[in-house]
Parts: sequence; structure tokens; C-alpha cells
Amino acid sequence: MQKPLILIANDDGIRAKGLRALIEIAKPIGRVLVVAPEEGHSGESHAITTQTPLRLRRLREPDDDDDEVTMYACNGTPVDCVKLGMTHLLSSRPDLVLSGINHGSNASVSVIYSGTMAAAQEASLNGAPAIGFSLLDYSPDADFAPVQAIGGDLIRKALKLGLGSEVCLNVNVPALPLSEIKGVKLCRQANGTWVEGYEQRVDPYGGKYFWLSGRYINNEPDATDTDEWALSNGYVSVVPVQPDMTSYRELERLRREWL
Amino acid sequence: MQKPLILIANDDGIRAKGLRALIEIAKPIGRVLVVAPEEGHSGESHAITTQTPLRLRRLREPDDDDDEVTMYACNGTPVDCVKLGMTHLLSSRPDLVLSGINHGSNASVSVIYSGTMAAAQEASLNGAPAIGFSLLDYSPDADFAPVQAIGGDLIRKALKLGLGSEVCLNVNVPALPLSEIKGVKLCRQANGTWVEGYEQRVDPYGGKYFWLSGRYINNEPDATDTDEWALSNGYVSVVPVQPDMTSYRELERLRREWL
Repeated sequence: MQKPLILIANDDGIRAKGLRALIEIAKPIGRVLVVAPEEGHSGESHAITTQTPLRLRRLREPDDDDDEVTMYACNGTPVDCVKLGMTHLLSSRPDLVLSGINHGSNASVSVIYSGTMAAAQEASLNGAPAIGFSLLDYSPDADFAPVQAIGGDLIRKALKLGLGSEVCLNVNVPALPLSEIKGVKLCRQANGTWVEGYEQRVDPYGGKYFWLSGRYINNEPDATDTDEWALSNGYVSVVPVQPDMTSYRELERLRREWL
Repeated sequence: MQKPLILIANDDGIRAKGLRALIEIAKPIGRVLVVAPEEGHSGESHAITTQTPLRLRRLREPDDDDDEVTMYACNGTPVDCVKLGMTHLLSSRPDLVLSGINHGSNASVSVIYSGTMAAAQEASLNGAPAIGFSLLDYSPDADFAPVQAIGGDLIRKALKLGLGSEVCLNVNVPALPLSEIKGVKLCRQANGTWVEGYEQRVDPYGGKYFWLSGRYINNEPDATDTDEWALSNGYVSVVPVQPDMTSYRELERLRREWL
């Protein structure tokens, strides 16, 4: 029997340490095709490229390319990478799509801004089981060993149980040594907000410009069934994510009140 | 009493005809601040800019700037425009945020790719009532008169009924003469997919590149409670959209089966 075919994408780019860590998790499970952005695309959400030409570049360095791992860099977004991988490079649907490992959290409302999770979601929209991984450490040199220790079992379990149509998993791992991680918790997405502002600066030519800065606020810190609670309490959080954004509660209310 | 303050953004850019049409809808309701991208940002979803400086340019042409309408162009994404408008340009929360009018549909799963709807959603995440408008006509010269005839009443009704916390409205209008539009329907987001491929070309220098192309498939054409059904049958569709992407059905099942 042929080994499963695994497509890997990310949003931190082809050179990110988190991508290399995810490849190491995937290699014992199957054959690996990587399609990742040339540069970092953090915060790029579900963006697709339609106005500029998309290009693919195959990596042929010995370290990047062996019998079991094929790597492509793409000048597009994380979602472009998944689309090109699934519809152009592969002739059949991959058995699994992995995204990440993201340098930084994608829990709570960050799922909406995340290129990592958009890549996973794009795969599940196209019928492949998909999992996005994130580590709560933004450093380029983050230690991914705990994710690597946990990731393989988590992937095998998810594949065994299967995932509902168009549902993917959002896996976040606290930045703790493996010995301090208490286990895996199935969660819902916490209600939270980014409270943000802009730092205004002046360039050497007198022009004003802005940098976004902000901090995350958990609007329900006591709710023990959320991803934010799990992560704050030493657990890996796993949230099943779907593309239906309808607010059914509001739909019901508006139907009663709209004349 | 001061007139309500309305922030307008879009994803087709500051010069789009749909933006001008939306300003005309908003002017009788309140004072208008426009912050729109310098260029078109279609399909940019909830992307935010963090790696390049953001800039704002005030438009001072007589046609673009009167007592009741102030216009800024921004080099960022639709979501950047809303963030800059709400946190930098305005000192208090706007009474309403409008986005669009998009040239083309944002019904069904397109809500995930849409910069127009991401802008509306960003506003509702920051506590403002928000509505995204789209017309099912991709042409730059689309006729927005039917949306203009319907838009004002729809906005007033939504403001009167209020919107739940973090919920915004996704309004799509069929490309029909006003006399053929049957009314407004409250809907859920249809389950649909973009079946896509890439057209491969070769540039004058021998390099390969790709253009995305695809067509939308409605996976539930007979479901009469969806936005796609409403639009195919001559109705304006209104879907309440929320940021919680948790699949509660999958969460329940996985909790039972995950050991």
C-alpha cells in the first residue's frame, strides 16, 4: 500500500522554522508535498491572488528535497499555496493537509486573521481532512519540540475519527516544556477582541505613516470550554472550525422582528 | 441633535462606482467618513498589514469632499481602512459602518474570501453596527440604482432592530431592474464551493505563471432558506454574520469519540 500523501502549507514562509518542524512531524506518516509562500504572510487571512501572476519555484537543495519530501515556494498567499498544490501540482486529493506550525497563537478571534488557518480551511473546503498547528511563541527561534512530541498522535487520532464535511481543526499549543503540558482539550473558539491602535511616525521625507499595534482581550476569561482557557491552563486546544458564518440566533430573532 | 456618523469602506478601491453609490445612500442618513483602499483589493478577505507602513491620503477634490462627506484613501487592505478609520481618524465609535457596494456577489462561501464583508465584520468586532452590500454584477459600470432604491430603508430597519454583539449583515442584491426585485429575505449562508483550476501561461522571458479561474457550485440548490436561493429567485438576501467559526456539531461528536 502506498503511504498517505500529505500537503503542507504555512503563512510564515518557506524558510520558517515552524514549517521545518511540521515536515518532521509529517514524514513518519506519509509522503510530503510542501507549497509555502516565498515570504512571510502573517495576518493574510483567506486572501487570494487574482491581479498578479502566480509563480511556483521548486526547491532543489539537498536539505530541502529528498525522496519523501518535495518542496515548492510560491509568490502568493497561504490560500494560493493550497489551491495550487491541490489543483495544479497534485492529480488526486491529498489524504491530509497540514498548515503551520505557526509562530504565534491562532486561538479565539485570531482564527479570522490567520493565514495558517485559512490554508487549512481552504483544504477542507476542497474535501481534504486538514489541521492547522500554532505555537504560542512568536519568536523565529521558537522551540517546536513539544509540538513535535504531540503532533503525530494528534494527527493520527483526528484521521481515525474523521472530520465532518468542510470542518478542519485549529490546534494551538501553549509555549511550555512538554512536561508541563497537561493534555489535549476539545474547545470552542473563545469570544475575544483585539484592542488596537496605530503608532504614528514620520519618514525621513516628512511623510506620515502608521504601524498597527494592539493587545488581545478575552471577553469570557471564566468560560472553561474555550480555547483561551485551555491554553492559559496548560492544555493544547483543539477547535473544529467550519466555513458557515451565519449567526443562527440573530437569524431567528430578525425573522421574528423584521416585517 | 447631531446627525449619525457613518464610516464607509470597500474593497474595490476609492475610485469604484459602487463606493460612490453607497455614499449617495448614506448621505441622507448622516455625516459620512470614507476610508477606502487606493487600489482594488478584491478577494483580500480579513488580511491586515503589519510588514509595510500604512499611509492615509485625504482627497480634496471638490467632487469628493463636501461638508457632509470626508474621504481618505489608504494603501492598505479593507480591514486596515476600517481599523484606521475607527481607531485613528475618529475619536468616538461611528453610529454605523457600511462596506461596498461590492461589484459582484458575496453570498454563500464567498463571505470567507470577501474584503467587503471582512471590513463589515471588523467594524462589528469593534462594537459598531455594520452592513456589507454587494451587487451580483462584476462590471465596473454596473447599475447600482436598484441597490440605491432599496439600501436606505434596509439600513434604517437594521438600525431600528439593532444587531447582536459582533454580528453584521451580509446584503446581496440580484442584478435585476428594481421592478423585478421581489423583496428582502433573511437567510442563512448557502453551502457552496468554488471549483477552481489554474490557467498556465508562459511570459515573454520563458517563465511559467498561473491565473486562478473557477466557477461556483451550490451544494444545496433546493434549500429555500439560503442566500443563493433568495438571489436566484429575485430576492435581496440578508445574512447575519458572526465571527465564531466553531463547528458545534463536530465539537459534540469529537468530545464523545476522543479518548
